[in-house]
Amino acid sequence: MVRTASASTSPGAPSGPTLAVVAREAGVSVPTASKVVNGREDVAPETRRRVTEALDRLGYVRRPRFDTTKPTRLVDLVVHSLDNSWSGAVLHGVEEAAYDADLDVVVSAALSRTRAGRPQRGWLDKLTARGSAGVLFNLAELTDSQYAWLEQHRIPFVMIDPVVEPPPEVVSVGAANWQGGVTATQHLLELGHERIAVIAGPRRRMCSSARVAGYRSALASAGVAHRPEYLRHGDFDESVAHRHTHELLDLPTPPTAVFVCSDRMALGVYQALAERGLRIPYDVSVVGFDDLPESRWTTPALTTVRQPLGEMAATALRLLVRMMDGEHPEGTRTELSTRLVPRASTASPPG
Amino acid sequence: MVRTASASTSPGAPSGPTLAVVAREAGVSVPTASKVVNGREDVAPETRRRVTEALDRLGYVRRPRFDTTKPTRLVDLVVHSLDNSWSGAVLHGVEEAAYDADLDVVVSAALSRTRAGRPQRGWLDKLTARGSAGVLFNLAELTDSQYAWLEQHRIPFVMIDPVVEPPPEVVSVGAANWQGGVTATQHLLELGHERIAVIAGPRRRMCSSARVAGYRSALASAGVAHRPEYLRHGDFDESVAHRHTHELLDLPTPPTAVFVCSDRMALGVYQALAERGLRIPYDVSVVGFDDLPESRWTTPALTTVRQPLGEMAATALRLLVRMMDGEHPEGTRTELSTRLVPRASTASPPG
Repeated sequence: MVRTASASTSPGAPSGPTLAVVAREAGVSVPTASKVVNGREDVAPETRRRVTEALDRLGYVRRPRFDTTKPTRLVDLVVHSLDNSWSGAVLHGVEEAAYDADLDVVVSAALSRTRAGRPQRGWLDKLTARGSAGVLFNLAELTDSQYAWLEQHRIPFVMIDPVVEPPPEVVSVGAANWQGGVTATQHLLELGHERIAVIAGPRRRMCSSARVAGYRSALASAGVAHRPEYLRHGDFDESVAHRHTHELLDLPTPPTAVFVCSDRMALGVYQALAERGLRIPYDVSVVGFDDLPESRWTTPALTTVRQPLGEMAATALRLLVRMMDGEHPEGTRTELSTRLVPRASTASPPG
Repeated sequence: MVRTASASTSPGAPSGPTLAVVAREAGVSVPTASKVVNGREDVAPETRRRVTEALDRLGYVRRPRFDTTKPTRLVDLVVHSLDNSWSGAVLHGVEEAAYDADLDVVVSAALSRTRAGRPQRGWLDKLTARGSAGVLFNLAELTDSQYAWLEQHRIPFVMIDPVVEPPPEVVSVGAANWQGGVTATQHLLELGHERIAVIAGPRRRMCSSARVAGYRSALASAGVAHRPEYLRHGDFDESVAHRHTHELLDLPTPPTAVFVCSDRMALGVYQALAERGLRIPYDVSVVGFDDLPESRWTTPALTTVRQPLGEMAATALRLLVRMMDGEHPEGTRTELSTRLVPRASTASPPG
């Protein structure tokens, strides 16, 4: 028979018999009753039945407690938002690696609730209260006071893809963004494109400037001049990319290919090109960045540069575990390589 | 200055001076030193500086501890997998509601690591060890032994969109799937379609049979005969839906519209129709189910039935909190309404 918590058996309820009373009622020793309550295997079925019945009869209330002999260590994953596939990939990687390390992961979107300069109500204090063993920050830009707080409380932390260059001592994991920019641009150059535009992310975002630098390096080493009007800065979201695309197409010499620094922005490029009646890849080639699951859903499927988000997250967790064990990683910045995922949105330039 | 944990300052390290030593070194009282360590505001800057310096000089190691005066309550969200936008929406809803209830959420993909019949290594035991106050299961199908374990430990739990009908006493939250099936089918009927096929999920999935029942009810009340050959059972993934679509198009009387019981399967339908050179919506209309973020990425954008996943998850969390507080919800099954999201994949039938 299945029961859900009711007034008489809720872990929240203040009263209830002790395990000793239950044991006496069941005619077993307290250790035996305890074994049953804690789901141990080494109890005879008949004994288990008697104890379970006694637990039911007396409405025994199990007090949530921490097994101090083998405490579960908790680590925190702190993100901005959870309802996007980027966070999903990161969380997946963290959870898998945490499982292997026998850690439990507390997930919060606390970064969406921080006011510049100081943590919101309770956020950091909760970490202390809970005795969090370490923290992973995804896409975070911490304030000095937040860094100071973490230092003061000796809570090890690792940043996954920090928004801006963190202080030199901070341990972080990211993608090889510069190399990714080179890869995407070289792919277009090899297809014969020379008029290659780039729609970047925000200027201040570290990952974006690295991708643009890779784009410029690839052009330079191919001897293709960089046209300033081909460089546009977006916000990683589609609407601004959509506007930039229309402006690029209005140039006297419009580009034949666009390297877009996020898959999400590529969606805006797709929409703008469709509005102009331009076909991808026959009229214009498009390369994205991220390889989010969504990029499979576009028509044509998006050629993009894959960031190993899950692997980045797992690496960050493993670094955090080493720090929790008192080690300090050699280098503070780990970069995992990106790779081109060729799909259907790139081809040779028209004519 | 920022420091990350090093050998001398790791929470994991076994040794280190006591707070008393630090206080003496800084020439302050232990309570004052404690205030600094715990990030309290009511300490003079100069005092804080002296204590912080002493902490650094002595390599004070903060022991993770649980603030018993105000313990943080933990609830568990247990899912199958995390790297999909469905889980993202659910986690988002749970996290927001948990924040409002001042609860922390431990997320695990433990359901992907359970063997039929018995929990995998440590999964349920961890909940006890940690003193989890309650559990939310997403898309779960628990075994009798798992139900029994939860009952035995008096751990309240709520199921979000259970895979199969759970035992009557189990509290669950889902979408109004029958109504969603009616809505999708009525939309197609109103556009003038009579040859409406349905690609359902697995037969045993509760949500799928409810959607198909809604489809049949809508046809019946419109006086349109149900054609058995128009009903296909998929697995909620795209490849089987892709095959079914080709088979439907090979029928002597192929359908002019397809109601697909998941957005993911709709992607397979899109691919099959493209392979036949059929245009959506002019030749065939398609309606999905879920309204995952990905559905915005298709061309044409997918008309679908929205499940309020975030709201379902938040509702489940709030129900769980009431159960943790000793209440027992009136009804054990809560259904939140679905609604049609009309986009570009539906139109009147050709000719």
